[in-house]
Formats: sequence, structure tokens, C-alpha cells
Amino acid sequence: MFKGKARAYTNIALIKYWGKKDEEFILPMNNSLSLTLDAFYTETEVIFSDTFTKDEFYLDGEQQDEKATKKISTFLDLVREKGQTTLNAQVISQNFVPTAAGLASSASGLAALAGACNEALQLGLDNAGLSRLARRGSGSACRSIYGGFVEWEKGVDDFTSYAKQIPSDHFEDDLAMVFLLLNDQQKDVSSRDGMRRTVETSSFYQGWLDSLDADLAQLKQAITDKNFQSLGETMERNALKMHGTTLAANPPFTYWSPDSLKAMQAVRDLRKQGVPCYFTMDAGPNVKILVEKKHLAAVKTACNHLFSEKQVVSAQAGSGITIIK
Amino acid sequence: MFKGKARAYTNIALIKYWGKKDEEFILPMNNSLSLTLDAFYTETEVIFSDTFTKDEFYLDGEQQDEKATKKISTFLDLVREKGQTTLNAQVISQNFVPTAAGLASSASGLAALAGACNEALQLGLDNAGLSRLARRGSGSACRSIYGGFVEWEKGVDDFTSYAKQIPSDHFEDDLAMVFLLLNDQQKDVSSRDGMRRTVETSSFYQGWLDSLDADLAQLKQAITDKNFQSLGETMERNALKMHGTTLAANPPFTYWSPDSLKAMQAVRDLRKQGVPCYFTMDAGPNVKILVEKKHLAAVKTACNHLFSEKQVVSAQAGSGITIIK
Repeated sequence: MFKGKARAYTNIALIKYWGKKDEEFILPMNNSLSLTLDAFYTETEVIFSDTFTKDEFYLDGEQQDEKATKKISTFLDLVREKGQTTLNAQVISQNFVPTAAGLASSASGLAALAGACNEALQLGLDNAGLSRLARRGSGSACRSIYGGFVEWEKGVDDFTSYAKQIPSDHFEDDLAMVFLLLNDQQKDVSSRDGMRRTVETSSFYQGWLDSLDADLAQLKQAITDKNFQSLGETMERNALKMHGTTLAANPPFTYWSPDSLKAMQAVRDLRKQGVPCYFTMDAGPNVKILVEKKHLAAVKTACNHLFSEKQVVSAQAGSGITIIK
Repeated sequence: MFKGKARAYTNIALIKYWGKKDEEFILPMNNSLSLTLDAFYTETEVIFSDTFTKDEFYLDGEQQDEKATKKISTFLDLVREKGQTTLNAQVISQNFVPTAAGLASSASGLAALAGACNEALQLGLDNAGLSRLARRGSGSACRSIYGGFVEWEKGVDDFTSYAKQIPSDHFEDDLAMVFLLLNDQQKDVSSRDGMRRTVETSSFYQGWLDSLDADLAQLKQAITDKNFQSLGETMERNALKMHGTTLAANPPFTYWSPDSLKAMQAVRDLRKQGVPCYFTMDAGPNVKILVEKKHLAAVKTACNHLFSEKQVVSAQAGSGITIIK
């Protein structure tokens, strides 16, 4: 019986991952850059043992159906290959993330599972290796291996596609993110299907790719300079652009809800009032607002006027993956 | 004293005009295709006389300021050149259109003014000539010369850029449009500024242009075939794409409000319930729903549940420019 347990935090991309070059290895079309946040995380324990006749997957105390378990099994097969074992496993996961609402639960989930497996089978993977492994489970999971600012180098193959931490001289410690949980329903179009449809049919997709080098360079410069305004503007612009690509897909689609628009307008109004803050959105209606800690209270107050207390959750920069003994 | 009076109706583009190739002559980057609607129109009388010491412009009974009058004067200069006169003019306009809310008041306004001037100075312009003249005042005005379906050929210069009616075997008589007036405030970004910013800075603009031949061909085929579903799908797709281009502009912007999203969702819900209808939007938050007359009541009922009675206005296909004796 071989056991391992790990905790991983979610991450929010400031430069978005949007489109796969290779669906099997989950190689992305472009580099992305994220901030790891402490408010949402997953703790996962994995037990490999010959007492299990098949893989089992428990999420938040409930055994998951065949489809969800199959996804985990496929990932475990990669791990078993690395660990040269054929043992079945029990995966027990606790998600402190509203699932499937664009809050990247799969990022923390697959990162935690990769860490737990590394521990259980003593695979000896370093962070780069863990990042590669997590990527195979869910692309953005490769960034949740690290705390702070993280860049996923798209690479050209399984070996070269992984994330690394970006030196930031603790800039992230000055920052906070307000999550506006505008809808926790399952999405109409999953991020996986959404990015595939966009890559295959959107006449804007090439324009998106062509503009990313500039966005990435500007965002990294903003981190180096600790320039919050430039960081926020670049992040917001990149998010709007990603969401613009879906409008030229065929059929077109959007992840925005009326409340998303209301939240964006609130952010613009806050800026007009002299509170520097910027929004980003992922494959769902939730809006995340980046702000310096010194202005966090002002942003939360404004959000609490528009949305219920339960919908407004604040976070700060989170750490990388942690092994739980 | 030389007088002329004309009425022109607004038009809503099914394939959008979005970007100028030439700002002076108002030559567009792409062909556009519209439907003329009967619900919103402008009546304009023009009087050329040596009793006027300068041009005067009255809109809805109020004399307009220098800036608005200057715009009209610039247009009148073109007319005076054609008519070989230097007389000043009084322009008296009645607008049956909520101004500056994306309802293309400038389209009906400048088309009516062109028609009134043609009459007053006996310029002898045919419809193509009127369309060219109206275009110089406001691009989309060149389409309001005609009723029904109208295509603005982008052309390569002043002479070749004008609109013509598309043969439709009265297909437009089966159709209605529901206007949802979601905001009649002045816009943050005018359509003129919005398209300029998009052309100059949006990384999606080339993708927009590249996709238009296909949209135009499909829409014309739908008119020929009287295929409402194809007409609606192509129109809605084209509108979403146009609005997608603004999200990649720098700085990015959007004309959408929370209510716009609510209206789009209502249209999607109606379709799910078996009511075929499709939306389009212009440079403002208003949403326009295209529907066959046989389903108009169902669409209006659904809209009246979401918005106030005053906000829901229905229209049918309108006629071309009319001279009022």
C-alpha cells in the first residue's frame, strides 16, 4: 500500500491559455502567465494497493461516476507507467473550489493529484517534472505547481511544455484578487469544447495568437517594474481579447452573463473614482478583480453593493504545491 | 427661395458596416447589407434662400449648436457645389428615432437631407446618385435611399461606392423586427470613433474582413431562397463578430450592457422553445430581433416580460426615400 497526499491552489491566468496544439499531450498554442491564489484549493490523497479491483475516485466524500473516474484512470495510467506499477488506486479529493464555474478547479485538482502520486510512488519528480505530469491531466494544472507568478512555456513537445515561476521580488504579496461568483451552474460550453471550437472555426484566432507576444512582454515588464497599472491593463485587455475570439466562432458563443457585464462596469466605475483595479474572466461568467491590497476594502465594498456577500470572495497570492504528511 | 422636403427610414445592417478605408469620402472597408425598417424615420425640409446669413439647423424644433450645424454645413457645401449655388440654407428636421443609441438616426437623417436637397435644388440625382451623396454625410445613410434589402457596394472611390436594392421577391414582407431600446443615453464611444479605433488597433480586424465574403454570400443566398433560419443565423453571427472586434481594440471597449446580454439570452431561450428569431446589435446597447411576422407576437410577449412596454418597439420593412410635396 503506497500513499501520498498533497494540496494545490488554483491559479488565474493573467495571459490566458486558450487553444491546444495537441489534444493528447495537451500542448498549448501559446504561452500563458498566471497568479496562484490562496482562496481555492484541492487536497487529494491517493492510495495504490492490490486490494483495489479497479480505480476509485471520491470527490468531496462522494464516489464519482464512471465518466469522471475514467478521466482520473487515464491520468493514473501515465503515473503507473512512470512508477512501473499496475496497482489500482483510490483517489480521495476534497475540493475547496466551486466546480465547473470557470474557477479552474481542474487546475488545483490535477496539480494536487500529480503531487500525491509523486509522493505515493516516490517518482522523484522535481517541479518541472510535476508540472509536465499535471499538464497531461489538465493544461492549466501545470501552473498550480508553483506559487506567485507562473509562466507556462508552450514548448514543442511533452518535455519542453511546462511551467516555471517568474521572479517577482514579492510583488504578488502586495496584490489581492476578488472573486465574484456569479453563477455556479454547469456551463453550456466547457472550456475544453470552447477552445477547440474557437481554434477550429474563429476567424479571430490568428489575430489572438499574433498579439500574445506583445501582451506577454508587457505583463512581464510590469512584474519586473512592479507597475500595477500596466499589469492590470494588460491582464484586462488580454481577457477581453480571449472572450472576443468566441464571438467569431461558428456557432458563436459567450461565457458572459448580464451580471458579468455589471461587474465589468463596476470595475470601470471604481477606476473613474480613483481606485485602480482590473478584471479578468475565464471560461465562465465569474469575474475576478485584481487590486492592490491597500485598495481591497474599497473594491469589496463596491462589490457587496451589487452582489450578495456569498458571491464576493477575496484571495491573496498562494503558495505552490504542498505535500501533506 | 428653393425648398425641398423628404422622409427617409432607418436601416439596420444584417451584415455590418464597420470601418472606413477613407475618412473624407466615407468609403467603407467592406460591403454591408441592410433591411430598411418603417418604425423610425426622419423628415427633413431644406430651404435655400439669400435671406439666411448663415446655415441654420433645427432638430425636433430646437436650433442646434455650432458643432451640429457645422456638420450639416459641410454636407450642404457638397450640395451647393453640385447645384452651383452659394445660398445659405435652413434645415428643419424631425427625428422619429431615439438619437445616438445605436438606432442609426444619422442614417435616416442624412438620407432625408440628401433627398430634400436634391428636390430643392433640382439636382436630378437618381437613386445611385442620392446614395453616393447621402454616403458623404453618414456612411450608412447611403442604404436608407431604398426600401427592403439593400447592399452597399464598398467600391474603390466616390463614384463606385453606393448602395443598391437587392431583388427579394417580397421576402421582407414576411419579416418583422423588434427593437429593444435598452438605453437612450449618449454613448461612451461613438460609432465613428469605435470603428476607427478598431481598424487602427484591433488584432481581430483582419479576421473580420476575411470572413465577410462568406457571410455576404450566405446572407444573399438566404434572401434568394427565402430561408429565414439561414438569414437569421448569418445576421446574428455577423453582429457578434463585429462586437468581438472591439474587444481586441486598444483600449478595448464594448457596446454591450447587462440588459443586452439579458436580451440575447431571451432570444436563445425563444429558439429553444421553437420560436425562430435572431438578434443583431449596432454601436450601442440596443438589441434588435429579427422574426417572421407569424412569430412576432410570441417574441413581443417574451420581451414584454423582461422589459417595459416603452422599450419594446416593433417594425416591418420600410420603403425608400419619399419626397414630401
